[in-house]
Amino acid sequence: MAGPSRISEDGLIARYFAPLAGPGADGLRDDAATLTPAPGHDLVLTADAVVVGIHYFPDDPPASIARKALGVNLSDIAAKGAIPRGFLLTLALPDDWTEAWLAGFAGGLGAAAAETGCPLLGGDTVRSGGPALIGVTMMGEVPTGGIVRRHTARVGDRICVTGTIGDAALGLRLRLEPEAPWSAGLDPALRAFLADRYLHPRPRLAAAPAVRRHASAAMDVSDGLAGDLAKMLGAGRSARIDGAAVPLSQPARRALAAEPGLIDTILTGGDDYEILCTVAPEQLDAFRAEVAEGGIPLTAIGTVTAGDGPPRFAMDDGAARVFAAGSFSHF
Amino acid sequence: MAGPSRISEDGLIARYFAPLAGPGADGLRDDAATLTPAPGHDLVLTADAVVVGIHYFPDDPPASIARKALGVNLSDIAAKGAIPRGFLLTLALPDDWTEAWLAGFAGGLGAAAAETGCPLLGGDTVRSGGPALIGVTMMGEVPTGGIVRRHTARVGDRICVTGTIGDAALGLRLRLEPEAPWSAGLDPALRAFLADRYLHPRPRLAAAPAVRRHASAAMDVSDGLAGDLAKMLGAGRSARIDGAAVPLSQPARRALAAEPGLIDTILTGGDDYEILCTVAPEQLDAFRAEVAEGGIPLTAIGTVTAGDGPPRFAMDDGAARVFAAGSFSHF
Repeated sequence: MAGPSRISEDGLIARYFAPLAGPGADGLRDDAATLTPAPGHDLVLTADAVVVGIHYFPDDPPASIARKALGVNLSDIAAKGAIPRGFLLTLALPDDWTEAWLAGFAGGLGAAAAETGCPLLGGDTVRSGGPALIGVTMMGEVPTGGIVRRHTARVGDRICVTGTIGDAALGLRLRLEPEAPWSAGLDPALRAFLADRYLHPRPRLAAAPAVRRHASAAMDVSDGLAGDLAKMLGAGRSARIDGAAVPLSQPARRALAAEPGLIDTILTGGDDYEILCTVAPEQLDAFRAEVAEGGIPLTAIGTVTAGDGPPRFAMDDGAARVFAAGSFSHF
Repeated sequence: MAGPSRISEDGLIARYFAPLAGPGADGLRDDAATLTPAPGHDLVLTADAVVVGIHYFPDDPPASIARKALGVNLSDIAAKGAIPRGFLLTLALPDDWTEAWLAGFAGGLGAAAAETGCPLLGGDTVRSGGPALIGVTMMGEVPTGGIVRRHTARVGDRICVTGTIGDAALGLRLRLEPEAPWSAGLDPALRAFLADRYLHPRPRLAAAPAVRRHASAAMDVSDGLAGDLAKMLGAGRSARIDGAAVPLSQPARRALAAEPGLIDTILTGGDDYEILCTVAPEQLDAFRAEVAEGGIPLTAIGTVTAGDGPPRFAMDDGAARVFAAGSFSHF
């Protein structure tokens, strides 16, 4: 039980979270909110939790943790071709929580919610009895029947990915081994770029409408490109990937040049939060142009093939690699 | 990280949770589900989490924990006048979780979901780094604009409550002090009744349509009648409650006869999960009749008054008691 100097649960909600409440949330003074999709639309629902020590470091800034908790959910919404409408928050706090931490958390949450037009609609605050856990359930919206599913790729479709791959996994490695030899050639700005990619997912919301119009299947890359691609294809489909086509940032290219073995980290590490999707070849140009309108790079990296094996990555050295257990699991 | 003998997260979902998936959940094979309210309806959203050692005991049966996690959310949905449509589950497991626990949990979850027509739509499974936490976000449905809010009672309205009050709090006390002198006169069946009321909320779903048609304000009683009543009334309203009218079960009446001081436990203890609501006097008879059609007892216990003080309970001895800090907090 919180000590006498602590703010009450109701006080905490009124001070830190009520200012973030959206329409239908009644200022968080009720146990429930209302939400109604626009006529001719479905709601799209997703839930992802982040836990201290597992999905983030205990000393990460609380505003960054809030951004990450929202970002991983926004990324799922975007990958389904949906527009965010709001979220509920389950905040489980450790016994030693402080108001300063909470103020920082609420500040980051509010900023991310405002930037993405995704207000807080409700939630629950409990003691965790352990480390902090931030659970988010997010609601998005698509035209009726328009959700882009994960398991609907067709043989012959082109495989595309937004942005760059591997940055967050390299940022995490740098965080764990700041003196790693491969990082010697990275100046502070490049190191900061990788660290930021780990800490702050950039959900690809601007690509969602194009994904909905063109993609035959889609998911976000959260557990590593190789493994998530295998998950997306499922049984009866495989893929031929051009390893050299996988889009890498400048710092990732430099790191890889210094240490070629990092290709495993890049292709199987987690936390990319890019959109992986498939599109019919004849729609690729239009798709790429529409994604570019949102300022987001899109790269075709391979083709869906028939078969049950894991995706094959054709590498520069002529070898074809597979990453059979190539998916990172936070569990 | 789970050891090699453990089932993977995907395997766990496929084995235990996919069988509970509802329409729109795509067999839990995707990161998101769709849900669309019926034409002319709003969705009602609520989230409540339960934590081992705080909201339940570590040795409670996992099926009971699952029922409680769903029940506390169903209770919120019912108190808003809504019908449940589905839920998302955030399951944070301790490092020593077992498949036997999980199988029991999923069994209880599936049974409660089937009984209430409220399927699983998605969720997330993570390691908690501490005790287990079960977070549920639930979606219900009401005719457009029909949600019954918490802060909308009118002076002169009658205050009503379903079922009986205090049983769960007495059940919890019995659990903590099985030899409590006041319990000496309770036979095993009465003790089991109280224990069950603590362990298994009975969400008052059958009363929801009548609440929606007649109540001017409503909430569920989860943190104690006295405190929740004060919360419902808010600023500018108070209440005159007939203490003798507060509905008590037979075991609660016996316990109270043995130990009159238990009235505080009964009126301020948590976990009743009954519906507390207000209704215009001229609608009371119709409201009571409609609630009775669902097999649920309803009792009028007092009247909304003007003023800012806490609700006043007129007791048998002629005293008027207030319970200023009368709300139990799990936080």
